[in-house]
Amino acid sequence: MTTNRADGRANNQLRPVKITRNWIANAEGSCLIEFGNTRVLCVASLTEGVPRWRQGSGEGWVTAEYSMLPRATSQRSQRESVKGKIGGRTHEISRLIGRSLRAVVDTASLGENTIVLDCDVLQADGGTRTASITGAYVALADAIKWGQKNGLIPLDKAHQKVLKDSVAAISVGIIDGEPRLDLPYEEDVRAETDMNVVVTGSGEFIEVQGTAEHAPFTRAELGALLDLAEGGCKELAVFQEVALSE
Amino acid sequence: MTTNRADGRANNQLRPVKITRNWIANAEGSCLIEFGNTRVLCVASLTEGVPRWRQGSGEGWVTAEYSMLPRATSQRSQRESVKGKIGGRTHEISRLIGRSLRAVVDTASLGENTIVLDCDVLQADGGTRTASITGAYVALADAIKWGQKNGLIPLDKAHQKVLKDSVAAISVGIIDGEPRLDLPYEEDVRAETDMNVVVTGSGEFIEVQGTAEHAPFTRAELGALLDLAEGGCKELAVFQEVALSE
Amino acid sequence: MTTNRADGRANNQLRPVKITRNWIANAEGSCLIEFGNTRVLCVASLTEGVPRWRQGSGEGWVTAEYSMLPRATSQRSQRESVKGKIGGRTHEISRLIGRSLRAVVDTASLGENTIVLDCDVLQADGGTRTASITGAYVALADAIKWGQKNGLIPLDKAHQKVLKDSVAAISVGIIDGEPRLDLPYEEDVRAETDMNVVVTGSGEFIEVQGTAEHAPFTRAELGALLDLAEGGCKELAVFQEVALSE
Amino acid sequence: MTTNRADGRANNQLRPVKITRNWIANAEGSCLIEFGNTRVLCVASLTEGVPRWRQGSGEGWVTAEYSMLPRATSQRSQRESVKGKIGGRTHEISRLIGRSLRAVVDTASLGENTIVLDCDVLQADGGTRTASITGAYVALADAIKWGQKNGLIPLDKAHQKVLKDSVAAISVGIIDGEPRLDLPYEEDVRAETDMNVVVTGSGEFIEVQGTAEHAPFTRAELGALLDLAEGGCKELAVFQEVALSE
Amino acid sequence: MTTNRADGRANNQLRPVKITRNWIANAEGSCLIEFGNTRVLCVASLTEGVPRWRQGSGEGWVTAEYSMLPRATSQRSQRESVKGKIGGRTHEISRLIGRSLRAVVDTASLGENTIVLDCDVLQADGGTRTASITGAYVALADAIKWGQKNGLIPLDKAHQKVLKDSVAAISVGIIDGEPRLDLPYEEDVRAETDMNVVVTGSGEFIEVQGTAEHAPFTRAELGALLDLAEGGCKELAVFQEVALSE
Amino acid sequence: MTTNRADGRANNQLRPVKITRNWIANAEGSCLIEFGNTRVLCVASLTEGVPRWRQGSGEGWVTAEYSMLPRATSQRSQRESVKGKIGGRTHEISRLIGRSLRAVVDTASLGENTIVLDCDVLQADGGTRTASITGAYVALADAIKWGQKNGLIPLDKAHQKVLKDSVAAISVGIIDGEPRLDLPYEEDVRAETDMNVVVTGSGEFIEVQGTAEHAPFTRAELGALLDLAEGGCKELAVFQEVALSE
Repeated sequence: MTTNRADGRANNQLRPVKITRNWIANAEGSCLIEFGNTRVLCVASLTEGVPRWRQGSGEGWVTAEYSMLPRATSQRSQRESVKGKIGGRTHEISRLIGRSLRAVVDTASLGENTIVLDCDVLQADGGTRTASITGAYVALADAIKWGQKNGLIPLDKAHQKVLKDSVAAISVGIIDGEPRLDLPYEEDVRAETDMNVVVTGSGEFIEVQGTAEHAPFTRAELGALLDLAEGGCKELAVFQEVALSE
Repeated sequence: MTTNRADGRANNQLRPVKITRNWIANAEGSCLIEFGNTRVLCVASLTEGVPRWRQGSGEGWVTAEYSMLPRATSQRSQRESVKGKIGGRTHEISRLIGRSLRAVVDTASLGENTIVLDCDVLQADGGTRTASITGAYVALADAIKWGQKNGLIPLDKAHQKVLKDSVAAISVGIIDGEPRLDLPYEEDVRAETDMNVVVTGSGEFIEVQGTAEHAPFTRAELGALLDLAEGGCKELAVFQEVALSE
Repeated sequence: MTTNRADGRANNQLRPVKITRNWIANAEGSCLIEFGNTRVLCVASLTEGVPRWRQGSGEGWVTAEYSMLPRATSQRSQRESVKGKIGGRTHEISRLIGRSLRAVVDTASLGENTIVLDCDVLQADGGTRTASITGAYVALADAIKWGQKNGLIPLDKAHQKVLKDSVAAISVGIIDGEPRLDLPYEEDVRAETDMNVVVTGSGEFIEVQGTAEHAPFTRAELGALLDLAEGGCKELAVFQEVALSE
Repeated sequence: MTTNRADGRANNQLRPVKITRNWIANAEGSCLIEFGNTRVLCVASLTEGVPRWRQGSGEGWVTAEYSMLPRATSQRSQRESVKGKIGGRTHEISRLIGRSLRAVVDTASLGENTIVLDCDVLQADGGTRTASITGAYVALADAIKWGQKNGLIPLDKAHQKVLKDSVAAISVGIIDGEPRLDLPYEEDVRAETDMNVVVTGSGEFIEVQGTAEHAPFTRAELGALLDLAEGGCKELAVFQEVALSE
Repeated sequence: MTTNRADGRANNQLRPVKITRNWIANAEGSCLIEFGNTRVLCVASLTEGVPRWRQGSGEGWVTAEYSMLPRATSQRSQRESVKGKIGGRTHEISRLIGRSLRAVVDTASLGENTIVLDCDVLQADGGTRTASITGAYVALADAIKWGQKNGLIPLDKAHQKVLKDSVAAISVGIIDGEPRLDLPYEEDVRAETDMNVVVTGSGEFIEVQGTAEHAPFTRAELGALLDLAEGGCKELAVFQEVALSE
Repeated sequence: MTTNRADGRANNQLRPVKITRNWIANAEGSCLIEFGNTRVLCVASLTEGVPRWRQGSGEGWVTAEYSMLPRATSQRSQRESVKGKIGGRTHEISRLIGRSLRAVVDTASLGENTIVLDCDVLQADGGTRTASITGAYVALADAIKWGQKNGLIPLDKAHQKVLKDSVAAISVGIIDGEPRLDLPYEEDVRAETDMNVVVTGSGEFIEVQGTAEHAPFTRAELGALLDLAEGGCKELAVFQEVALSE
């Protein structure tokens, strides 16, 4: 098959996906997820109790923090801890990951526990936020199992109830007029339109974020991109299931 | 006509829109825009020169800053200047406004000039980011005219060239299972799904940001919401044109 | 009458004063106050409870925050929220407004409630701190009435008791050797001496801040400036009374 | 003579004043100034060049920074360097000191040099800002002499030209209905009205800052306070002259 | 052999050491170094040019930044980027790593190039600073080779000249009265005395930092600890040499 | 005796030491300590209660903050309060002082009280951290006596029990190949190796921090430096004892 992509992939093909569970010994859940050269360490920390504004609600809380090591990218960037403030992009992605994971958690079944998902990009080659969401789901699932085994999450709240569904995410975009799946960095910067899509295991949408980077897009193009993303997320859901069943 | 909305609007109906141009005497462009009770002051500041990383490119720069007065909302919130840092939501909306406006500007025709769009929410009742984008376009158009009259933007670069198109934005969402246009605060908090859509005057998309707040959404629901948004933005483009022709 | 002022005013004449009450729908008290082209939005937020260090005292607390929109002035200035810290001038004016308002409030009659006065300068043409104090008094008076109607401020504490007096403020200065009342920006920058005076409705002083900007001033000049300020504040007290009786 | 003051002073009497010149070996000018138990280290640093916004003006710049050691007061306060921001009171006093000193300097004669005055309160017992101004003048005078000896300030710009006059400051206030000079901490907190007055050696005013702390003040009371302050500053000018002639 | 250590090691025995070179594809030098369960990613970024204060000196600059992922430890800690400031411990370790590496670099032979060493602790079990120094040396050596191959470091400056020696570091301490080498977390917290020692490949000291945590130490104990550290660093130098020769 | 030192001292000779107790009237303990031209104000503040993480432990807490006035050095440096953050060096020294003092305090005997040691360098000429530790011990001893007299530290906990020993510190270094005691600034910058040593009154070590500034050091050189430091600290212990017995 002929392809116009630098890495020889078909337009609807994912990069190689690899999920290494329990990469961090002490965490309640963790994995190292790789989408091609993009490598993100996703760690879930489960603790009793919830933030003050949620106390007494009987409901849990799930939140996320995304960050990039200074040399994850080809040019070293300054640490946000050194700058003394978190940039807009980091904030935005942390919020996206948190929202995406909360969408599949039944916080009442979680009880008054907090799960923090740390997604640290060790190496970046496009798609860091979608890899983060996809890997964070695996870490989250393990942390919930840990909480159930260790009695933090009440016994009569079965696993299938705390997690209402699985969730994965992928980037899609239009490059040289072609809709393509799972953009590496060199496609991402050239994309006319760029979209991140978060989809549940049962195929419904949690988040659609499409941006015209170099040219506005039509309703038809939007449709083509959503088709690609639905297919990609279906495949990712299988990778997650396999990883969690090992 | 029967309606289930608290303010009696049809599901595809905008709130009353009002654009008061030149609200700030000294600015190169400004307007006070109102979407119902949401009231945003949009001010465009045009200055010669561009940020260091863009110098010598021959291209201009357009950026935006969004902020909310502490008592724009029903509960007073702490000032970000007092907290000493800008929150994630503020960053995210500022970036969205900047991207949306840049999408209709031909930065080469703008020359090495910078336009900063300040969108300050004086009163908030839902849709502050979409009102900001819609009003910022009017302020931007006036600032460009000012720059052309005052010789900062070269004479042979006609108005229609600097602005490739107009741009407007609206929120849509699913409330009680019904897709609705232009959500006030009380609908916004109850929405199962919530979407902000940025559309050009010629009807193409610049940004689509859909979020499942309380329930994932289907492809069909996504389609219904985009239909509503396209209609709303078409009307807003007329309001903008009328305001600019006065 | 001949005058040396650019706007044709007599040296003892105020600029046009306009007070628009209840500019913000949801606030306990608010007004938009204008001294000529200076336009300040003054909003009072009343909440139950007081800061920790005052709890159990039976007394209320009144404080103020002053801020300027980035393009209130003829040159855009950087937001203090973006800089990450509040400048000395902002701090100083916020403290002045808070002290001036507290001077007319009987905090024991207020009960353990807090009133925050937000004074946001939308357009600046000199006298922003004096307009802020004058407008903040109107917002404060309305917030106290609201608190009494809604039972936060105990019934047996009548209105006249919480507010011991009214308060207004005006700037005066010596320009080209002439003492003048209510300086716009272009006079303010040229003033040899510049003074802000805060006066109660009954004609006593709350604050006198005189600064030799370009030349020290004599005891006689100080006297002439205080005469002007007393007259100006007497007029402002009438504007406040009229606004509050509407 | 009978007196109502805890330390037995007459109402128009200063606390013991002590000025120790050259307390810091390496500085261009310095003194330790004491007003009773208030002890401030005033250090002047003279460097070539001026801030960017003043370059090419041919004029110098004088600025000041005021700070208090954490245990200068009877209760330890947190360091502003630890809090990560400078408080409103510190800003306000630093600005006052800078303005007061600039008022007696002919910046054109100074040439493009910068003098920073650091006023660090080692022990505080009221009047720290007035002691700072009074001591900073001595440090400033020495730094200017140093600059002239070392050729930074051009030879044909004689000393009397750079310093147009001397400057001193004192606090006054009304306690138990009595106007009093030079308030120690225990009078300062009880004062109905409190005023800081900055006066030149030739007896003109540079700054008058009067605040009604517990009760508004009349025009007559204001007059009585200014009389006291004029007398006190005249005495301080003699202390300065003696110190500088040693 | 009998041992009192939880992991069965002899008192003078290192934990298993593992150095994985080139863990980051795009960096000029990098390795993942493991001392038992302690796992640090060391990345060297080489760029042309030096900080402003060193420009024109003809000499290069080497600096380091140490950081810990939030869940490297058994309890999640807050990110320093979120706190908005870097803690004292982080600063101290970053400075130690920088000093240690600079001690073996001939900055004149490096030319006006800057090497930043990022040491990010992915998993922490004691000895993170000594693992960082040991791994950073490997990344540094690779970055220098890269700079020589790519012409940034002049050809006539041979490898052996830029790096004057190798450098490694190890922790030692007294636990239950016994001097021990390479403390894991559980020994580190119980140590009466704790010392970090940085030693060159030729066996000289670069840094000795000994701290009495629970009891002062004698000159004899100090000697025993130094003996252990010299032995440990000699072994680490072999691990480094092997890794770099692969 | 011949000497190579600029100030004519023998290599094993301290600079003139001067300790002025109770320099701050209101503090529980304080002294001004001088090592030659280095002048540090050490103040101990004793308050009831401990930080939250130590509450209920029955044990007290001792901590320290080190800072330098901007013109303590020959070039004025920017205030850390103005920069908005504390530098690495300041953090490191504050931590060292706190550790050194805690090493001689029996926190159980101290009871749930906190002592903060503020060490503010008024004039700097090398050895500021060692002078700080030496002076802080004197202030600490006085604060403990104050606490015992005033009933904060329980009666049956005698003085000798709270303070297990005295503590002093000195710098040593190798300059031009010679080991020397108590380095002033001009020797400190030239030192090949530089070491700070903290020693108890009974001659045991609390902290040894040796750094190769310009050349690695041998085990024999390390020994020579420790010999010098032990001698210097023994002398300082006498100065402390004399000061405390006055």
